[in-house]
Amino acid sequence: MTGADSQTQRGARGRRDWSTWPHYDAAAAGFRGYWYPVAWSNHVTGKPMGVTLCGDKIALVRDQGTAYALHDRCPHRGVPLSLGRREFPGTLSCPYHGWTYDLKDGDLVAAITDGPQSPICGKARVATYPVAERLGMVWVYVPIADEDPHPIDEQLPEELVENPFVMGGRMDDRAGNWRFACENGYDEGHAKYLHRTSLWRLFKAMPTWNVTRIVPQGRWIYRKQEEQFWEADFPGLGRWTNKRWWKLSPLAAKDGGAPSNIGNTGAAAKVDPVIAAQEFPGFASVSMPGVLRIAYPNFIHYEFYVPVDADRHLYVGVMVNFLRGPATLKFYAKYLGWIRWLFHGQFSGQDAWMVDVTDAPPEQLYRPDVSLTAWRGLAEKEFKAKLAAIRKEDD
Amino acid sequence: MTGADSQTQRGARGRRDWSTWPHYDAAAAGFRGYWYPVAWSNHVTGKPMGVTLCGDKIALVRDQGTAYALHDRCPHRGVPLSLGRREFPGTLSCPYHGWTYDLKDGDLVAAITDGPQSPICGKARVATYPVAERLGMVWVYVPIADEDPHPIDEQLPEELVENPFVMGGRMDDRAGNWRFACENGYDEGHAKYLHRTSLWRLFKAMPTWNVTRIVPQGRWIYRKQEEQFWEADFPGLGRWTNKRWWKLSPLAAKDGGAPSNIGNTGAAAKVDPVIAAQEFPGFASVSMPGVLRIAYPNFIHYEFYVPVDADRHLYVGVMVNFLRGPATLKFYAKYLGWIRWLFHGQFSGQDAWMVDVTDAPPEQLYRPDVSLTAWRGLAEKEFKAKLAAIRKEDD
Amino acid sequence: MTGADSQTQRGARGRRDWSTWPHYDAAAAGFRGYWYPVAWSNHVTGKPMGVTLCGDKIALVRDQGTAYALHDRCPHRGVPLSLGRREFPGTLSCPYHGWTYDLKDGDLVAAITDGPQSPICGKARVATYPVAERLGMVWVYVPIADEDPHPIDEQLPEELVENPFVMGGRMDDRAGNWRFACENGYDEGHAKYLHRTSLWRLFKAMPTWNVTRIVPQGRWIYRKQEEQFWEADFPGLGRWTNKRWWKLSPLAAKDGGAPSNIGNTGAAAKVDPVIAAQEFPGFASVSMPGVLRIAYPNFIHYEFYVPVDADRHLYVGVMVNFLRGPATLKFYAKYLGWIRWLFHGQFSGQDAWMVDVTDAPPEQLYRPDVSLTAWRGLAEKEFKAKLAAIRKEDD
Repeated sequence: MTGADSQTQRGARGRRDWSTWPHYDAAAAGFRGYWYPVAWSNHVTGKPMGVTLCGDKIALVRDQGTAYALHDRCPHRGVPLSLGRREFPGTLSCPYHGWTYDLKDGDLVAAITDGPQSPICGKARVATYPVAERLGMVWVYVPIADEDPHPIDEQLPEELVENPFVMGGRMDDRAGNWRFACENGYDEGHAKYLHRTSLWRLFKAMPTWNVTRIVPQGRWIYRKQEEQFWEADFPGLGRWTNKRWWKLSPLAAKDGGAPSNIGNTGAAAKVDPVIAAQEFPGFASVSMPGVLRIAYPNFIHYEFYVPVDADRHLYVGVMVNFLRGPATLKFYAKYLGWIRWLFHGQFSGQDAWMVDVTDAPPEQLYRPDVSLTAWRGLAEKEFKAKLAAIRKEDD
Repeated sequence: MTGADSQTQRGARGRRDWSTWPHYDAAAAGFRGYWYPVAWSNHVTGKPMGVTLCGDKIALVRDQGTAYALHDRCPHRGVPLSLGRREFPGTLSCPYHGWTYDLKDGDLVAAITDGPQSPICGKARVATYPVAERLGMVWVYVPIADEDPHPIDEQLPEELVENPFVMGGRMDDRAGNWRFACENGYDEGHAKYLHRTSLWRLFKAMPTWNVTRIVPQGRWIYRKQEEQFWEADFPGLGRWTNKRWWKLSPLAAKDGGAPSNIGNTGAAAKVDPVIAAQEFPGFASVSMPGVLRIAYPNFIHYEFYVPVDADRHLYVGVMVNFLRGPATLKFYAKYLGWIRWLFHGQFSGQDAWMVDVTDAPPEQLYRPDVSLTAWRGLAEKEFKAKLAAIRKEDD
Repeated sequence: MTGADSQTQRGARGRRDWSTWPHYDAAAAGFRGYWYPVAWSNHVTGKPMGVTLCGDKIALVRDQGTAYALHDRCPHRGVPLSLGRREFPGTLSCPYHGWTYDLKDGDLVAAITDGPQSPICGKARVATYPVAERLGMVWVYVPIADEDPHPIDEQLPEELVENPFVMGGRMDDRAGNWRFACENGYDEGHAKYLHRTSLWRLFKAMPTWNVTRIVPQGRWIYRKQEEQFWEADFPGLGRWTNKRWWKLSPLAAKDGGAPSNIGNTGAAAKVDPVIAAQEFPGFASVSMPGVLRIAYPNFIHYEFYVPVDADRHLYVGVMVNFLRGPATLKFYAKYLGWIRWLFHGQFSGQDAWMVDVTDAPPEQLYRPDVSLTAWRGLAEKEFKAKLAAIRKEDD
């Protein structure tokens, strides 16, 4: 052991690895058994594209309006089907020898260069993946075994299933494990320190620290701030504050530092008060398989952390406003005008930076990390139950 | 096992790995015991150059007209000799300390910085490789043990040994294993589908599929097309054809879709009819250690797939015309004018693309892959016999 | 075994691996238990920077004039502290959540986002490294266990501790193991051959070979040339010489080819004759942990080979002149005018080239490599004694 290592561990206290959450620990390439958004709907066209999800290579292609997902490997010689093209309706052909697969079930329906009576037909197939489209995105279900997927609407944030809304969003392929991204998103502490220099935060006050409680409700856990401390005197060091003279008074912030003056479109009266004020017991909530929801007074911001493989993830950030009619135009103008750049861009870029350099375990947690351990506990419990249910089905 | 994997294998039939051909399976970095072209002769000069062949690092250098090949590693400190220079005739010196090797046998004949009586002389050496020059290229023999090489002319395509000819060619260092390159070259099916979009094929018809027989003869196996089908109706899918209205009638193609109007220089009468029409029982043939021969009516195209290591190969494509006199000028003009770009360039680039993305085993073969399995069988049998002969010599 | 390998080893004689020097063999990432220069002092500022030394990631930062070094990993979530900033005097804060460490002892003195009473304070810390500044550079001590460092002045070349001097230098992050760099620097043979083409050597004669003795003295071993041979006739090959008609007569070179006309500033009378002529029993000397000293008549050149990790090293080349007063201006002009480019640049670049391609063991040594084996023996012996002393302390 080197001197540096031995000295570092001298200060170790409590758990430093993830053995408390074995399934979470094993889910480096994501939790199978869930739906994930993988591409904007209008990017999935008749020309196939390749994506990676939970380590699986997947070919996406659209045929007569419907999106399909196939395992991106022709069993003949291992060539990616996403390099191929559609020779006949409802099929996709491998670029190499024209092996042609039915998009619905993956069966080999023709081997063009072996003629219509090719004996290989009916003896080869590629795996297909369930596909759905929601929020203007193509979602793919990655199975654990060969189970049928649960309905995607059971997994979406509830308020997005039946309510009309307008939205703006951003997808970024990013370095770093999806769990670091999700933990970063739900993490209480970093917002107050890491993001203190972001432009998005320039005109908003935030506490230096607070006392937080985690409240479970249904598939979600909520972060509820019980006490807030705007400034702090650190003995022997000095005073530290997140307040700036030009920022709004902290009293103007109603919910855990949530900005009250963002998204206020004048049409705010149309926000469903049930959604905005009553149902959510807290400002920030998270659910499986890695979905963050930040309930601002006039809109909701979501982040989906999509596992590409153990080293990369797809960041999907979405702003949703439950508006109707002409007010939606204002939302789009505001989103494209500056929310997209300040929030989904520079602010979120600070997160991407940290997610890329986070390196745990080992780790040493502190009080605000109750949000991390609660999330890990939620993930562990839900996935364990899911596995048990699938095994029962098989019996 | 993931859902994708388990579903993919559901359709598996027959052999999916290469255990049927154990020597072939083991020859990821090439078959040792053969001659390989590694560089154009005029690129091998008095200034040494380094190449990799079958995973061996080799320094090439020319001295008084003769090309030599040495193991590219000075045993003193591991520095590549291809960075060195010739201080004395018939020798090559390491750039670092001037250890000087005899080009003929690799013996250390001087350690310049240790003076004429250096005791290391006669106690160190580097391996040398047999070298020959044919077709304007430097060929190197990679030994299995320390056996003497067979004569290179026993390995060259027979018609290239004694006949005069003109040629044009191209060497490309390419990604992908040499076996994928060789299998691609001899592969029956892909030409009809992959290359349907190449400019080279624009004015030539090709069948959609055909019935093929493999005919062994001497060191070669030939692909003989017994029946050709220009169009095909795939039940429930539609009709597929390689014919285009602007292409030549299929009846104009005489041999397996071989273009009859290419290479016809007006001087075609000078083509040796023995070579072009009688000796070859088929259009395409292949021999060890990875040589493809396509017999067009008026010229022959060869491809040599040279193993660099397990991940890269050197593609050597050569067009040969058995002409004499002024007709050779026409051949050069035609080769440089367009054959080089259309055939050795764009057409061959489609092959390079597929060779790079092929990923087998596992694999699942179909009827036209009889050409692949016949080639693997040929390689397996010939190499096994070669090993047996070398072991017998050692006794 | 391939043919090349078996043939290469045919010529093997004597030791070919490093098992004679087990500690040296194990020190791929450097010898811990020494001081190493890691950055120019004026590059270490209030904005932290990250370096790697002996494989350890280290954050350097300057606070109120003093340079500090911390293990570059926040134990909370593994984020590099070199990305952080100083929020309070005498501390460094992690960029992610504001964990704040005392620069002197690495103790966590505040977790900003958990308030002044954060229970984590006092329970976490990062390792610190002893830091010193000498020769305009920041030096860091890398401990073996948790021992106190020896005084840096005991490790510096003795003449640099008390004498006033002027200097010029260059730091380069280079490919290759630090041991190859050190062996190259002290290596007798390569200077005569590798560097024969350098501009630095254009006007200086050098012997073709010589007879050398290694003389130990204190912490150093000296290379003493007993006989020099300016030209050599290699039987059957020819004559080889390092002399050129335009070069100075060899007789003008006083010590092992050391250039007598370099660094002669006219103020040479001020050179301490004790240093320049009497104390050094030879031209080139080396000491642990990889320090080369070349004693030219009017100045001394040093090279420090700093282990970054097993694959890279930091080359630190320094020219020192023991001058005072206006003569120092001349030295700077000369250094910046051409020594820096010819010697620390092109000449040293040839070394960097060889260090990058050296690949040993296996190796096969020759007579002039007595300098290498003596250096390895010195390193082995000194480090073994150091380990024994540390273990004794622990008892």
